[in-house]
Amino acid sequence: MSNRRVVGAVLFPGFELLDIFGPLEMFGVLKSDFEIVMLGENGSLVTSDQGPRAAVDRTLDDPGHLDVLLLPGGIGTRKQARNPAMLEFLGRTYPRLEYLASICTGSGVLAATGLLDGRRATSNKLAFDWPRSVTDAVTWIPEARWVEDGNIFTAAGVAAGIDMSLALIARMLGEDVAVQLARATEYDWHKDAAWDPFAALAGLV
Amino acid sequence: MSNRRVVGAVLFPGFELLDIFGPLEMFGVLKSDFEIVMLGENGSLVTSDQGPRAAVDRTLDDPGHLDVLLLPGGIGTRKQARNPAMLEFLGRTYPRLEYLASICTGSGVLAATGLLDGRRATSNKLAFDWPRSVTDAVTWIPEARWVEDGNIFTAAGVAAGIDMSLALIARMLGEDVAVQLARATEYDWHKDAAWDPFAALAGLV
Repeated sequence: MSNRRVVGAVLFPGFELLDIFGPLEMFGVLKSDFEIVMLGENGSLVTSDQGPRAAVDRTLDDPGHLDVLLLPGGIGTRKQARNPAMLEFLGRTYPRLEYLASICTGSGVLAATGLLDGRRATSNKLAFDWPRSVTDAVTWIPEARWVEDGNIFTAAGVAAGIDMSLALIARMLGEDVAVQLARATEYDWHKDAAWDPFAALAGLV
Repeated sequence: MSNRRVVGAVLFPGFELLDIFGPLEMFGVLKSDFEIVMLGENGSLVTSDQGPRAAVDRTLDDPGHLDVLLLPGGIGTRKQARNPAMLEFLGRTYPRLEYLASICTGSGVLAATGLLDGRRATSNKLAFDWPRSVTDAVTWIPEARWVEDGNIFTAAGVAAGIDMSLALIARMLGEDVAVQLARATEYDWHKDAAWDPFAALAGLV
């Protein structure tokens, strides 16, 4: 099992449940290919914005080897975008990752690190003003299910993280694996990153 | 906030992550309407089939008031369908619920309680033989996103639980609320319980 990729999932108080557990379902079903590590600033339980609490496996100070890093959104992102421990962790970890991916307003935290400077990115459609307010050094794309720029992927709001994760899995393991995975989880995969009815509903286009 | 409905979510070792956290995202966003309580046989952390661990708020012996109960699937269901503590909890709790709902192979555990006897129900399309093997006193419906029979809802595999949860929310709070919730979470809600491309893919129809 030593050739499994390690997928780190960052938790912080007020994370959005489906932002992280949607993607982790997809990676987690493929046990021969991925190992999941839950990361937090300290080792205690982390409470989601919706209430349920999840356990941390390793701290941001000692995350171990990581290949893919997932950063969820949620109301807690506003505080994390000003949390030196979180920003330093992301900046220090990125250079050794194969892929860095955010979901929903997680892209606002990524933007605060400077890692998105000069890149294209997206975010939650009903909270698009917030990541925009973090920095104008990013080309924010309002109409996209997810945006890929090099090895940094940013998903739109909440459920969009599942589509992006299947795209990441397709990139790493081939599209057939992702198609079979979507079928096994009875998920209606939107394969096209340009599919986004929610931007117009939010008045962004 | 005393008029909020309490949504209990049952955890057991080997539960399927998205089965429970997809629905809980939907209920959990509506904080004025729903309070989430995570339930487990004992008070410790519960490990999902995919690896991440979630915390229990109350035990099956002392769950407190519940209005809606969600029972996920996952590989752990095979053991739960023979677990007297789980079966007794479900049988004792059902009469005071407004709605009882299972996701994926959770319907196999419900079937083992006898609560589905004489009712229509569905389950995961790639594991349909298992709930069928539990009892033939249930009319198992292979082609359905979810099935409603009285106040018992059973969803198809994994992601189908999100569609079923939006339907439950529509029933309780009106369809407009569910439509706005799907939009806020950027989820492509399949409103039609008969929509099910996965049954044919699985050779069930």
